[in-house]
Amino acid sequence: MTATGAEAIIGTLADCGVAACFANPGTSEMHLVTALDREPRIRSILCLFEGVATGAADGYARMAGKPALTLLHLGPGYLNGGANIHNGRRAYVPMVNLIGDHAVTHRQYDAPLASDIASLAAPNSRWLKSVDRLQDAGTLAAEAYAASFGPPPGPVSLIMPADIAWTPGASHVGPAVNAGLVATPDDLIEQAGRAITKAKQPAILVNGTALHPGGAEALRRLQAQGVRVITDTFMARQGRGGGQFQPERLPYFAEMAVETLKDVDLLLIAGTKAPVAFFAYPNTPGAFTPKGARTLNLGGPEIDSAGAVARLADWLDAPVGSSAANWTRPDAATGDKFNPHTIGQSLAHYLPEGALVSDDGVTSGAPVYDALTKAARHEWLGHTGGAIGQGTPVAVGAAVARPDVKTVCLAGDGAAMYTIQSLWTMARENLDVLTIVFVNNAYRILKIELARTGAGNPGPAADGMLSLGNPDIDWVKLSESMGVHAENARTCAELNDALARSMSTKGPRLIACHIA
Amino acid sequence: MTATGAEAIIGTLADCGVAACFANPGTSEMHLVTALDREPRIRSILCLFEGVATGAADGYARMAGKPALTLLHLGPGYLNGGANIHNGRRAYVPMVNLIGDHAVTHRQYDAPLASDIASLAAPNSRWLKSVDRLQDAGTLAAEAYAASFGPPPGPVSLIMPADIAWTPGASHVGPAVNAGLVATPDDLIEQAGRAITKAKQPAILVNGTALHPGGAEALRRLQAQGVRVITDTFMARQGRGGGQFQPERLPYFAEMAVETLKDVDLLLIAGTKAPVAFFAYPNTPGAFTPKGARTLNLGGPEIDSAGAVARLADWLDAPVGSSAANWTRPDAATGDKFNPHTIGQSLAHYLPEGALVSDDGVTSGAPVYDALTKAARHEWLGHTGGAIGQGTPVAVGAAVARPDVKTVCLAGDGAAMYTIQSLWTMARENLDVLTIVFVNNAYRILKIELARTGAGNPGPAADGMLSLGNPDIDWVKLSESMGVHAENARTCAELNDALARSMSTKGPRLIACHIA
Repeated sequence: MTATGAEAIIGTLADCGVAACFANPGTSEMHLVTALDREPRIRSILCLFEGVATGAADGYARMAGKPALTLLHLGPGYLNGGANIHNGRRAYVPMVNLIGDHAVTHRQYDAPLASDIASLAAPNSRWLKSVDRLQDAGTLAAEAYAASFGPPPGPVSLIMPADIAWTPGASHVGPAVNAGLVATPDDLIEQAGRAITKAKQPAILVNGTALHPGGAEALRRLQAQGVRVITDTFMARQGRGGGQFQPERLPYFAEMAVETLKDVDLLLIAGTKAPVAFFAYPNTPGAFTPKGARTLNLGGPEIDSAGAVARLADWLDAPVGSSAANWTRPDAATGDKFNPHTIGQSLAHYLPEGALVSDDGVTSGAPVYDALTKAARHEWLGHTGGAIGQGTPVAVGAAVARPDVKTVCLAGDGAAMYTIQSLWTMARENLDVLTIVFVNNAYRILKIELARTGAGNPGPAADGMLSLGNPDIDWVKLSESMGVHAENARTCAELNDALARSMSTKGPRLIACHIA
Repeated sequence: MTATGAEAIIGTLADCGVAACFANPGTSEMHLVTALDREPRIRSILCLFEGVATGAADGYARMAGKPALTLLHLGPGYLNGGANIHNGRRAYVPMVNLIGDHAVTHRQYDAPLASDIASLAAPNSRWLKSVDRLQDAGTLAAEAYAASFGPPPGPVSLIMPADIAWTPGASHVGPAVNAGLVATPDDLIEQAGRAITKAKQPAILVNGTALHPGGAEALRRLQAQGVRVITDTFMARQGRGGGQFQPERLPYFAEMAVETLKDVDLLLIAGTKAPVAFFAYPNTPGAFTPKGARTLNLGGPEIDSAGAVARLADWLDAPVGSSAANWTRPDAATGDKFNPHTIGQSLAHYLPEGALVSDDGVTSGAPVYDALTKAARHEWLGHTGGAIGQGTPVAVGAAVARPDVKTVCLAGDGAAMYTIQSLWTMARENLDVLTIVFVNNAYRILKIELARTGAGNPGPAADGMLSLGNPDIDWVKLSESMGVHAENARTCAELNDALARSMSTKGPRLIACHIA
């Protein structure tokens, strides 16, 4: 009973298994900072902007299967980290956001940094409490940790007033019991199996653990029984490459997604929700399930979709086999065309076994995804919540969780600028991350969407809001300014050389691919 | 009645007087973007991160006296802009945040970018509505504009679903009637006057319009009648220099503020609130008003404090005169010491008449403030909400509102990194902003606060969270990468040369002052 509130929080979280803290602290978090100082089980990593910290916690959780801690400074610190907490909520990853607050005794004064943290944080928190009594510090830390696992897993918010942090008299609380993911009931599996045998064009839309490494074989077995296997467009984590079974991927654009699903008469759902459009467009349906098709839901993000899919394959008596027998490394791209397709082809050649690929490539991400189907075994960490600026922070966190493998980040130039401070943390922590920036000097997706939404042709003012040129960003200088080696690539040959150098070197690097 | 919802919103806001839009749009805002394209009265300015857009709207409003529009992309766009909206709320400036949302018909689907925007935005919005019916578009735009003036003025949130934006059948609504600031009642002025005549050590704590250019003379008159005139530590806008009367400034650190006020027996408040500590510290009072002192409140941020102070001076029959008779430009600093004091002294020499100074200098800001008391007439745009990353965006907005004068931004290196994307907008718009970065490779304020909060001596992990070194940021490369000319200064002589060059050149520049 001699621990301060801060020590009880930090010690309890370490007892629970927290091993990384992505931090940008302020005055109200000073006792949490020194408590972290005295807790060798937690690695503290400074981020120069909170959006880097929260995105890194997301990437860490995707690879570690447990939450990282973030340390945020009152309401504004939470707001700065908010977009990547949103993305983390949509990734269904555990994340413990520890938000410092004014002392309980100081709340009455409405000091300049005061705001209603609980209201700000509630919409993107699966659980939220404030440690307003010293004796609750350890208990609430354990509760927060457990709550982050859901099911489904997600970000939780623990608000820590400064005076509770600095007052002695609190205790550690032993590790919490985390609920696991939910198993789909047997009768639902059986119902799905029977429905498949009767359907003409059955399909299953999957996300979650079914896409994790090791899940592809069960998906291949379903496919072998005549079930089309389709993933969401965006997934937190997918084991890919090395010749393993590759499911279809639902297209991003609504009319293409509708076309993909139009002949399906039975749509099973596992680890996700019924498919809907990312955005609404005039005269385009928002929901993609064909009229007249039967939908059968095996469970959303709260289920162990890997288990559900494997049990369904067993029920169907699908033969077991290996889907990755004869993989050979594809050739790198050569020739005159330098675009996301050829960049993907070159990356497929150079990508090392076991690599992690964090995608914030927007219009460039999809062609690279397709090309990497032929690459060595790797994991794809997709963009989950639609808020750009996720890619480089997720790469930071993934590389912290998995220092044994290369992490590659694909970033649109517009997206990269959102959380460009990530590069500094990559340099400081000497993370083995290669960032590939697709430089087209535009929010290219918006130039496409402008037409698709029927908003008309852009005049000069609109074009100015969709273009990143004037001035063009010097990506090599920008990267070097934060300590990350960088080079430009304007041809396949230049990129191949740069990739060869990057893949044979440990540590952070950046390649700016000029595709405009 | 042929306008789309988007055109009705944008047209109405232009009718109301909106002349600038700081934007980072996405797919759901495409019709707003093309509506802006067709509205020549509004200048659209792209920011590469929403925190730049909202901070720029704050700086714009401080100088223009009316709101700018921001264009934000759903919940995550709002979150990214949130910290500077918080600062704007604390600056009491009008700001209209136009937040695109999914189509009303699409809300049922919980698409990846969906979130509860209204809940996220409520704590920092003085007014918040969603345009869920086409016929309300123009009316709500006018209402939002008017509501941003309060009193007190502040950020308002107008949520605009995509389908309302693209549907025709809406109308412009004529300009709205804005409430002005409140006048302090005559009897309160008289009560204050009588109290002053009876007090031994009367003082007035002021903020708001009393600090705007032209307000200093009334403050000098009060001082001449024996009333100590003290400003808040942080103010949105203060006319300073050129020999005009300079009130005392309440110190930032609690114990110094307590000391400053300890002998006061009458504390008048005008345009602000009773003084409290920025943060709580163990064994230090949170409120600064001395026990036993009488407090007399002439009104908070909702009042016209300039008017209240002038009327109080009249009631006291204080003589009218000029406070700025004999000003001469001070010498620049020379010699071996290169620190915020000498940097402030050099800036006081070189600062051109009428300049605007946006402060995000944290530990370096206060010494410069003191030094600039001797500078030419200028305006100080202080840090209002405590969320760092305000300085460069406020400079962007101030420079857009006032292209006729030089804007100087003071930024700590930690603070500058928060919203470093501001530099790109300065370059694109060729804004006449000189950014001075105080490079000490640390969150130096936190190294001070660590000791003051009694959190103990930092070990390696804590020190790592408070230091920006390893790697040191190359500020010249960073600035040049976004198109802003930059140079280093490591001595008074180097800085003086750089300041001379910067002040004789129009357009964005950066000087990195190495004070570590």
